[in-house]
Parts: sequence; C-alpha cells; structure tokens
Amino acid sequence: MKQSQLIFKTKKENILDESINANLLIKASFVKKLMSGVYSYLPLGNMVLRNIESIIREEMNKLGSQEILMPALHPKEPWEKTKRWELKEMFKIRDKEYGLGWTHEEIVVPLAKEAAFSKKDFPFSLYQIQTKFRNELRAKSGVLRGIEFLMKDLYSFHVLEKDLDVFYEKVKKSYFNIFKKCGLEKKTFLTLASGGTFSKYSHEFQTITEAGEDQIYLCEKCSLAINKEIIKQEKYQCPKCKNKKLTVKKAIEVGNIFKLYDKYTKPFNFKISDKYVFMGCYGLGISRLMGAIVEICHDEKGIIWPEQISPFNIHLISIGKVKKQADKLYQVLQKKGNKVLYDDRDKNTGEKLVEADLIGLPIRIIISEKTLQKNCIEIKKRDEKTIKLQKYNR
Amino acid sequence: MKQSQLIFKTKKENILDESINANLLIKASFVKKLMSGVYSYLPLGNMVLRNIESIIREEMNKLGSQEILMPALHPKEPWEKTKRWELKEMFKIRDKEYGLGWTHEEIVVPLAKEAAFSKKDFPFSLYQIQTKFRNELRAKSGVLRGIEFLMKDLYSFHVLEKDLDVFYEKVKKSYFNIFKKCGLEKKTFLTLASGGTFSKYSHEFQTITEAGEDQIYLCEKCSLAINKEIIKQEKYQCPKCKNKKLTVKKAIEVGNIFKLYDKYTKPFNFKISDKYVFMGCYGLGISRLMGAIVEICHDEKGIIWPEQISPFNIHLISIGKVKKQADKLYQVLQKKGNKVLYDDRDKNTGEKLVEADLIGLPIRIIISEKTLQKNCIEIKKRDEKTIKLQKYNR
Repeated sequence: MKQSQLIFKTKKENILDESINANLLIKASFVKKLMSGVYSYLPLGNMVLRNIESIIREEMNKLGSQEILMPALHPKEPWEKTKRWELKEMFKIRDKEYGLGWTHEEIVVPLAKEAAFSKKDFPFSLYQIQTKFRNELRAKSGVLRGIEFLMKDLYSFHVLEKDLDVFYEKVKKSYFNIFKKCGLEKKTFLTLASGGTFSKYSHEFQTITEAGEDQIYLCEKCSLAINKEIIKQEKYQCPKCKNKKLTVKKAIEVGNIFKLYDKYTKPFNFKISDKYVFMGCYGLGISRLMGAIVEICHDEKGIIWPEQISPFNIHLISIGKVKKQADKLYQVLQKKGNKVLYDDRDKNTGEKLVEADLIGLPIRIIISEKTLQKNCIEIKKRDEKTIKLQKYNR
Repeated sequence: MKQSQLIFKTKKENILDESINANLLIKASFVKKLMSGVYSYLPLGNMVLRNIESIIREEMNKLGSQEILMPALHPKEPWEKTKRWELKEMFKIRDKEYGLGWTHEEIVVPLAKEAAFSKKDFPFSLYQIQTKFRNELRAKSGVLRGIEFLMKDLYSFHVLEKDLDVFYEKVKKSYFNIFKKCGLEKKTFLTLASGGTFSKYSHEFQTITEAGEDQIYLCEKCSLAINKEIIKQEKYQCPKCKNKKLTVKKAIEVGNIFKLYDKYTKPFNFKISDKYVFMGCYGLGISRLMGAIVEICHDEKGIIWPEQISPFNIHLISIGKVKKQADKLYQVLQKKGNKVLYDDRDKNTGEKLVEADLIGLPIRIIISEKTLQKNCIEIKKRDEKTIKLQKYNR
C-alpha cells in the first residue's frame, strides 16, 4: 500500500491519554478513542486485529475445534438458570429483558446439548471470535480493558473427565504457540488462579508489564506464577518446586482457561448416560492482546510490531528524486510475497523516518540517490540498530 | 471436512418456524434461533457468512475503500448533534447514556474529519463489517430481519459533488457484482426510493421474493423498480421510460445507497475551504443476504448454494464398502483445490442423499461399489437433474 493513500496519518503531538498502548496506538493512528473503554480500529489497527485473529483461528482449527458465531444479545432466561442474571457485568436493555453477553456459557451449552446425543459424539469443542460487552465503570487502560472488546472464546465438552484433562493441556500449548507468534512468549507466564468450588486451580496467562492491573508471584525456576488471590492459600511458595523466592510482578491477564466440570451443564440438564457432561472454557482477549503487544513491544520512538502481527512486513521509504526506482522496487518486493507499506510521499527525510519508527513495521528499506549511487538499498530492522547496505540491481 | 466430524447434524423433522430461510437454515443446521430476530451461526452458517464477507471485501477494496472497525457502543452526544438520539431504533443502556449502533454516521463523520484537512485528502471512503443492533418489536423473517445482524456499511467523503456522483455510480456496479456472486443478480433490482429532503432519490437493491416485506413496482423494460413510498409521486410510471405497465412484486431490501450531501457533515462542522464536505452512505446486510440467498436458491428438497457462497464446493458421498477408495478420492479432490465435505458415515444411502440435498452444496459426487465396477464416479449438480458418470482411475 502506498502511504500517500493511507487515510489516517500519524499525529505529531504526543498523546497523553491513559496508557502507553493507547498513546502509541492513537498517535500512530491505529485506533481512535470514542469514549472510555471503547475504541474504533482504523485501517492499520484493523489489519492488526485480523492478523491476531488468523493466528488464533489456525491454532483453534489445529485443536479440531469448529468455529461458530453466537449473538451478543441474550435473553434473560438462560442467565436466570445459571443464577448470573444479576451480576453487575451485564449491560441490560429493553426493560432489562435482554442482556449483552460478556461470556457465552449460557448460550453455548444449550447449543451443544442439541448437537450431541450419544457418547460417540464426544469430545468436541466450539469457538467463536466475537465482540463482547462488559459493564465496568473503570475502563482506563487503553485497549487492554474495554467495555466493548473482541474475544476468542472456546468451549469444550467431554463425557470422560480424562478427556477434559487432555484437551485442557492441549489448549495450554496452543495458547503458548499463539503468544509466541504475538511476540509475548518471554513475558507471558502460566499463572495458577482460583478454581472456584469445582477445581483446585484455573489458569491465567499473565503478561508481565508495568501497565498490568494484576499482581502475580513468579517462580523463576519453574516459570510458573501464582496470582494474588490464591498466594496466601499457597503459603507464598511455588506449589511445584516449593521455591519461596517468588518475584512480585505487575501483569495483565491475556487469557484464562477453566475446567468448569458440570457447573454449567447441570443447570441445562446436559447429560449423557445419566451423567452431566464435563465442560471447559478457554478465553483469549484479541483487542487486549493488541494492547499487550504494544505495552511489551515498543521503545521511545514507537511501536515494534512482531512480524506476524504487523500490518505490513516492510516499510519502503523513498528519499529524494528516486520515484521511478522506488516504484519498481515496490513492485519487486510485493512480487516476492512481501506486504509493503511504501512511503511515496514528498516529505522531508526526518519526518518520514520518525513516522516509520512510530508505526513500527519489522523491516525498513530506504532507497535514495545516495544508496543508488552505490547500487544499494539500506535495510534496517526496527528492533536493531545496525543499518545494512544490500546490493540492489535496478 | 469429514461429515462424521461435523458437530451439528441436520434435523429430520421439518421446522415450521417463521420463514423459508429460517426453516431450511435451522433444519440443515446452519443456524440456531436464540430468540426472535437473534440467531447463532453454526459451523456451516459461519462459513457462509465468511464467504459473503470475502466477496464484499474484495469489491470494497476494488473501490479503493479502506476497512475499519467501529464500536457498537455509542455515547449519547454525537447522536444528539444529529437529533437522532430519540429515534425508536436505538437500544439504550446504562441509564440511557449509551446506545447500540444501528448505523454509524455519528461515529464515522468525526473520524473522517480527523483524517482529512485539505482538498488533496479527498475523495476517500471507509467501510466496516460489523454487528448492528436495531430495536424492532416485530422480527419474524428468519435471518432476513434481525434485531442483531451483520452489516457492511461504507461511507464516502467528497469535496466536489461530481466526485460523489462518480463514486455513487461505482458503488452501484460494485453491488451488482456482489449480487451476481451471491446468485441473486436475476432477482435483484435497482429501486428508486425517497431521497429525503436532500436528494431526489436514494436507491435500494430489492430482491424479489415472496418472503419480502416490501412492495416494489417493477418496470420490466428498464429493469428499474420504484418503491411503494414514492410510486404515487412518480404517478405510477417508470421515470426512465415512462412505461405505465409496472408489475407489483414482493421484495426484500438487501442493500441501500444514499447521497447524504451535508446532512451529517453539517452537524459536525466538517468543512473544507468553508464548504461542508459531501457524503454518501452505502449499506449491505450480510446476514440478510444469507437469508435472501436461501429464499431464492432452494427447492422442495433443500438449499441450493451458489458456488462462491457455499461452505464447500463438493459433497463427496461414499456408499457401501468403499472406504479406502473414497478416502483416496477425498485427498485427490482436495489437492486439486476443492473444498470438500466428505460424507464418510456408515448410514443408509437414502438418508445420505436426502441430507446432501438439504445442505445444498453445488456438486455431489458419489463413489460406490457400483460406480467403481465401471471405473467411474457419479457426478450431479445440485441445481440440475442429470446424473453423469465420469471415468475415475483409482
């Protein structure tokens, strides 16, 4: 794409909004804030969301899960069955007869019940990528904590408890594959959380960042963390290796997984051979992942997008009177399968480079009269300082 | 995909819900009704939505439009500026401080205003594929008329009126390209509608079907229709050829386009060189298109999906003890780039064929002991009666 055609330009002034992710994403024109906790995703931001979605879809499909799309508008009845209608998270509309879904157990269990009649229909799982709403008064961490947000939610159903256990472990691996592709694997830790009345633990995936609203106790030996809620019950030690030297870190929860057993299959009387079906649920915040990536992957100049998340992989910048050669290089790079943002604008070099650093594509290529005199182009990775000259036959 | 792994099976009993599209889509397990006007899209239905979305995205990108994603939750203020806050269409939440968007002029105009400062930034357009909500008490035409529905909405901005005119005509063509790929082009007519206080006409795209809630007056000479609202003002004749023999038809509005001029740029004071920016808006219902396709493309046996909309292009059905050969054919067909639903189940032939007709994939291929004795497979198109034998070297 030619940058001259990009409708939303980067902003010159610094944004002093509420969080690093919001400030950088707004300044680089990936998002615009509509109100607290509610954002519009501009063309570059929309591309980032789509890239995160593809990574997640690929992993979900590998699990053998099937994608569906459930509605956001929910009737009152199923939520009364699970006794969650009165929870404060729910926005209510039309004389409080409908609610806006902040999770989908109440909708997916009746769906699943209709699909599976006998043991041979199990195990199976369903997922969706869908917009959720959550009634929170305090929403002030950019796209990390929205009252409207994009989520992937996965639900699995099992006749045998051991099948739930097996699937649960598979999802853990899947999630780490996703975090790796999102550039978050080094900062993201499996974290023990309360399992409610049914399980000993549930698991969160916590990404360490100063922007995090959660606090975790990290065992650096095991790479396992314990969340604040249950650290007392765990006697301030790692339940795996008994290490007592835990490091306290601020973190943001990017995903959570939960063995629900029959918590939600019971109210809907979802049984096979007189036994309630076992269930697991597995959430992952897509817009929140975008925010977490920016919190982790940035420097003082701007964002540093991981390759698979970046809206384009190459930022081609022409400097000076090299339009013909730059146009050609743009074609060549695209033919090789690259997604290229081509800064074809007639602007001063400094400004172009500052904008490129702010937008944060993985590879910057400069073509100028100076580089062409040496039959070269200049290549720099966004996360490295070295500039390399590479031979280029025009 | 192997049909044995498809989580949601077709239903045996006929559904006598509210409309042909709902009955067939529910029976074939493409959708499940959650409540009036609100549906879950099951794996096959979700694939159909994704296919319609790709067709639309391709055409929008060809127009040079850029995709964004605006939120569903809207604050009150911009809607007060346009004096639309009190319209009955809006679901309101949190003490009526927020609304759920049923259209996005109030959100996109302030966005666009931030992007464009000078004449050279024009013309431009933005579109999104997004879930909308509309407070309607009467919602009883299946996915044709939802209170929650998926829409593509496109907004264009122009300094010159003639640029708006040019873009408007391009969108018309774009829409017919989309209807063609959706198998609706023969039944869908450009329809003159009221232009409000600003334009002489706006345009609807009406698909003729008994399920339609609208009435149009069709001039079969011009292939132009006039909607009920303005037929009196047009003196019951075609404004193009003056033909007075108009045929009254029931139809469903699948899209509409509107020259808004400065109707919404004025309240937001969006000006260039002291003149309000011209604007156009262009809607297309995605879930509604899915419903319209089923209304048009079906017979007494089930759905007949157009090729580009169908979740799979081939339904491969194995009959009898031919597992090894059928498995191989499944691989071969996929390697050739086909999307194949492979009915590998151990079920009686009659049931398999009935289900295949109900699901409605474009091409059915049968492999059986009988066909293999002749070194053949049997090929039948869903919309044709002829069965062809084709040589097949196993």
